[in-house]
Amino acid sequence: MNVGIVGVTGYSGMVLYSFLINHSEVDEIYLYGNQTNAEPRQLSKILPAFGENHLVIYPFDSEKVKEQVDCLFFATPSGTASQFAASLIESAFPVIDLSGDYRLHSAAEYDKWYGQPNRMLPDQAKVTYGLSEFTQDYANYVANPGCYATAVLLALAPLAMEGLLETDSIIVDAKSGVSGAGKKLASSSHFPFINENAWVYKLNHHQHIPEMIQQLQKWDGEIQSIQFSTTLLPITRGIIANHYVKLKKKMTQETLEKVYRNYYDECLFVRFRGQELPMIKDVTGSNFCDIGLVMNETTQVLTIVSVLDNLVKGAAGQAVQNFNKLFGFEESAGLPLLPQCP
Amino acid sequence: MNVGIVGVTGYSGMVLYSFLINHSEVDEIYLYGNQTNAEPRQLSKILPAFGENHLVIYPFDSEKVKEQVDCLFFATPSGTASQFAASLIESAFPVIDLSGDYRLHSAAEYDKWYGQPNRMLPDQAKVTYGLSEFTQDYANYVANPGCYATAVLLALAPLAMEGLLETDSIIVDAKSGVSGAGKKLASSSHFPFINENAWVYKLNHHQHIPEMIQQLQKWDGEIQSIQFSTTLLPITRGIIANHYVKLKKKMTQETLEKVYRNYYDECLFVRFRGQELPMIKDVTGSNFCDIGLVMNETTQVLTIVSVLDNLVKGAAGQAVQNFNKLFGFEESAGLPLLPQCP
Amino acid sequence: MNVGIVGVTGYSGMVLYSFLINHSEVDEIYLYGNQTNAEPRQLSKILPAFGENHLVIYPFDSEKVKEQVDCLFFATPSGTASQFAASLIESAFPVIDLSGDYRLHSAAEYDKWYGQPNRMLPDQAKVTYGLSEFTQDYANYVANPGCYATAVLLALAPLAMEGLLETDSIIVDAKSGVSGAGKKLASSSHFPFINENAWVYKLNHHQHIPEMIQQLQKWDGEIQSIQFSTTLLPITRGIIANHYVKLKKKMTQETLEKVYRNYYDECLFVRFRGQELPMIKDVTGSNFCDIGLVMNETTQVLTIVSVLDNLVKGAAGQAVQNFNKLFGFEESAGLPLLPQCP
Amino acid sequence: MNVGIVGVTGYSGMVLYSFLINHSEVDEIYLYGNQTNAEPRQLSKILPAFGENHLVIYPFDSEKVKEQVDCLFFATPSGTASQFAASLIESAFPVIDLSGDYRLHSAAEYDKWYGQPNRMLPDQAKVTYGLSEFTQDYANYVANPGCYATAVLLALAPLAMEGLLETDSIIVDAKSGVSGAGKKLASSSHFPFINENAWVYKLNHHQHIPEMIQQLQKWDGEIQSIQFSTTLLPITRGIIANHYVKLKKKMTQETLEKVYRNYYDECLFVRFRGQELPMIKDVTGSNFCDIGLVMNETTQVLTIVSVLDNLVKGAAGQAVQNFNKLFGFEESAGLPLLPQCP
Repeated sequence: MNVGIVGVTGYSGMVLYSFLINHSEVDEIYLYGNQTNAEPRQLSKILPAFGENHLVIYPFDSEKVKEQVDCLFFATPSGTASQFAASLIESAFPVIDLSGDYRLHSAAEYDKWYGQPNRMLPDQAKVTYGLSEFTQDYANYVANPGCYATAVLLALAPLAMEGLLETDSIIVDAKSGVSGAGKKLASSSHFPFINENAWVYKLNHHQHIPEMIQQLQKWDGEIQSIQFSTTLLPITRGIIANHYVKLKKKMTQETLEKVYRNYYDECLFVRFRGQELPMIKDVTGSNFCDIGLVMNETTQVLTIVSVLDNLVKGAAGQAVQNFNKLFGFEESAGLPLLPQCP
Repeated sequence: MNVGIVGVTGYSGMVLYSFLINHSEVDEIYLYGNQTNAEPRQLSKILPAFGENHLVIYPFDSEKVKEQVDCLFFATPSGTASQFAASLIESAFPVIDLSGDYRLHSAAEYDKWYGQPNRMLPDQAKVTYGLSEFTQDYANYVANPGCYATAVLLALAPLAMEGLLETDSIIVDAKSGVSGAGKKLASSSHFPFINENAWVYKLNHHQHIPEMIQQLQKWDGEIQSIQFSTTLLPITRGIIANHYVKLKKKMTQETLEKVYRNYYDECLFVRFRGQELPMIKDVTGSNFCDIGLVMNETTQVLTIVSVLDNLVKGAAGQAVQNFNKLFGFEESAGLPLLPQCP
Repeated sequence: MNVGIVGVTGYSGMVLYSFLINHSEVDEIYLYGNQTNAEPRQLSKILPAFGENHLVIYPFDSEKVKEQVDCLFFATPSGTASQFAASLIESAFPVIDLSGDYRLHSAAEYDKWYGQPNRMLPDQAKVTYGLSEFTQDYANYVANPGCYATAVLLALAPLAMEGLLETDSIIVDAKSGVSGAGKKLASSSHFPFINENAWVYKLNHHQHIPEMIQQLQKWDGEIQSIQFSTTLLPITRGIIANHYVKLKKKMTQETLEKVYRNYYDECLFVRFRGQELPMIKDVTGSNFCDIGLVMNETTQVLTIVSVLDNLVKGAAGQAVQNFNKLFGFEESAGLPLLPQCP
Repeated sequence: MNVGIVGVTGYSGMVLYSFLINHSEVDEIYLYGNQTNAEPRQLSKILPAFGENHLVIYPFDSEKVKEQVDCLFFATPSGTASQFAASLIESAFPVIDLSGDYRLHSAAEYDKWYGQPNRMLPDQAKVTYGLSEFTQDYANYVANPGCYATAVLLALAPLAMEGLLETDSIIVDAKSGVSGAGKKLASSSHFPFINENAWVYKLNHHQHIPEMIQQLQKWDGEIQSIQFSTTLLPITRGIIANHYVKLKKKMTQETLEKVYRNYYDECLFVRFRGQELPMIKDVTGSNFCDIGLVMNETTQVLTIVSVLDNLVKGAAGQAVQNFNKLFGFEESAGLPLLPQCP
């Protein structure tokens, strides 16, 4: 089958492309820009060391897309997919959307957290929030989860689904590499700023917060809010998130490990590692989300640490995983099965 | 006056030395090794680009120390000062001890957290835990606080002293640069390990935990424990600590800022910055601890962020500050008044 | 076919393993330690986030090796392969040796540059120095080139083979990431040492110098020596080498580009990029060596810049490339065709 | 005395300011912006963690400058000082100009290398090129040398002045941290670009080339050109430059060391270290330029390595050194005498 990518020159788009060219079920990859009236551009002119000379990025044209490809990926900043997706959703054309445009069910929430109107609000029944490990039935339009949201939801899912969480106790301290902020120049991505530094940003205002709450509430209706902070680290890739929670009942380390193993033992891309706490390098370059946890008997606080590569399991990797599940391919097709070492 | 340093070749020792040579009240600096029977060594042989050729490190000899200098600094790993300090404490000789040897009042706690016996337990009345901003009366032996402990105690002091903390709610997520682990080779300080990585270590087991609780309890006897995690970051210097706490009563951002300003407006080296959250680079190379806080109305969690340079305010800088207070010098003598930029 | 790896827990070994598990012609991978009498060890105990639980590292046993696998890779420090390889070379068993043990033809040179005796000097006819792009006929024992040597030889090959070099003018200024120094703890790999630093090491004494001269002399017998310096950079992976040479005759940029294109247009893994100078990130994670050059009309010095990933084209990637050529597989089998981005 | 700074919010300006507040001869520091009609701005609004609240940046006004201060520093991008300096040069008002505006004697060269017209060409007799170690007689307008130029000129000065250089053999491979490119956002300063990377830029086109040649020719009229390359490194501060030269006559390591010691033994800020090659961290934060050299008997190439902190000896530090020499203060006044460790 043929697939298309909108936004290949962004970080997620490049990683996505590098997975899809290794995908056994993908024949040709068509590239589209995020404008409808631009000139075609040669990929190698923009990214000289990436991709072959013959590759061309064409302006976006939804009719051509439907002719040329069998599935389309949006690897675009928020606000782009919603400009183009109307007819695709309408016609149930297969789309994996890596952006935040259709993750939230509520238009008001989108406006509030993204600071821009979501132009075309779809019929929610036609969109699936694609947290791969917890999604069985896919609509043809898949809203791929945010990087932080994936790290947090996978870390909390077993407790939330089992109703074990003291629902007003959830505190998440997440840290991310700079690629999460994208390719656009910004003073916080300027090397002399973030090198040898660590910077708390968007405290209580990160746009992944409503996405996390929306999903947590599906699992445990009592959850109303989470305390969520984000620290920018001087690394390119990776997220590490510490979760501090209290539980409704006293539980031992052993019992908690059982709960998690029960959820994740069959999951190829979530590696539950017991009381061994994972670090970012355990997963860099791979589609794994590694999770460890330690119950503190003194404070009765449970610390759960999850790590993932924000561009892989937090973006392009989960997108391919969703693509595989949507089309019934092997879940790992096209995805690397080992982290990059060292 | 003359001063002595034991351990000048370690990271804290080097920084300490660089402050003391600029100190207006210090004439000569004598250097001692942490062994009693070693050969004298030339400093420039060990650190060719640091210090003048004539400087010699002599083996430690407490009698010579008393003759040569008026104050001694221990910039040594834990377990060293306690080997040498007996007669110094006995005779009330002025000492600033940067190590953890005499921070804890309880011998049992020292054994438990440091994993080695503290050979000589001093009369506590003769030792001061020197958190500079909160210390008025100094004994002649000053136990300089740990780097994490300083960041956490300064962040929580106003709330603890005012009795505002929900005492079982204290969660601290602290991150540190690699120099905190010292000069000794270790796999976690190996560049290919920690570069592009972040690693949670000593969760619930960091030796600064009892030191923090000991001091917090002095301020608020109800505090029994804190949830404390530490993440190693790929930077050389700096600590950033996020504190998540709940309060006994509802308080606004504005009121909370007033509480902090009340404590810190007169403190030269603590810069309270209101709702502007500080980052590591705001303080690198300086003796500042910067603090900011944000009250989350939704979750009723207060986030307090404190930053400091682990080798300055977290070690050598606070040591000089304590030295200045002990001898009645100007508090900032010898200390840089601006962070390093960029 | 089955293959074996000696030294999978080192950096080159890990990368090699990650390529071989994706190799279409490889069935099973056997792992061997570099000792003969050690206990079997579970890979996941040593590298928890890498590899499956069932993988076991067995002590080295050359008879077992011959039974179990069809080709053996040594990803070991220098001095190891030569302990074990005698019978393998004797019996013409297929081996790809990533170490420096058999790169030099002269035993005296090995002793001089490696500082240790090469125990068993093989019949040179039975060993091939495997600079992939310039090797057609393979003996069954392949000495995989060093990382610096690969960067330098590929940069200079066209000029050397055409006899264009002013032979006493070759100056190479190469820079490398820290993974090149391996996993063993060393003060120069200590994070606080090399972070925010750059350090010239082994000037005129790097063990890749004789390897480069040996090969250059095969191409141009007049070349007697090169001026070669190495700088350690605070990055994990990658080599960038600047070559400054004078030519025997005046040549234009255009003519020089033609010479290089003539050699490399058909090479899958050498990308000649004309006057566009490549950077390390153009090739990280890939098996590419990218080369650019600029003729300075004023100084008549030609600058050639080559870059590669020291663990891929400079080690494990070229090893797989040699393996593919030795067995007649597709040259790119198992190898990534795009650099990691970003 | 009072001094003024134009451009305190840039990297050099901040470092300059941090030196001048510690300078025993400086009373007040006045801050000026690089526009004449702008509103006054509070420094703490722009750099919240740097400087006191009362500091205000006033628009530039040369009449006010002459009233308020006794010496003015330009820490501005090229093209700014030359807009404002006319009347200051005319009236021989003391100025230290950290920019490139008046380093070149030739207007045509300025246009060629800086790509912008130098508006007001001064009487060269009224401007001194202030390479501190080699300047005795100062005009009142001091053009502070470029960072690369300082590293290269100090490395080559003894050989050039002694006429020992094979004049067409000079090859310089210099590497710099990102702060050299300033605070302005640029894709090459974007963290995900330069982190884990190294990038050759402006090969043969760096604007410090004519400045170096101009000065080298003063020392040795035979020198016509140098081969100069620059590599951007993923560090914030520091330059390391490798110089490869041939000599007119055969010289031993020992003799060469004597030549250098002869020039530098009395220089406080140049530390000649013999055959021990310096690294960037030996000088970070200090005003030192460290130099080492190794004669290669095989190739007859002499390698000279020089290092400096581009913002200190390469900018603000040398500016203060020039200021001290211009006014007859102690050469080290205001300058740190130890590198930052670690």
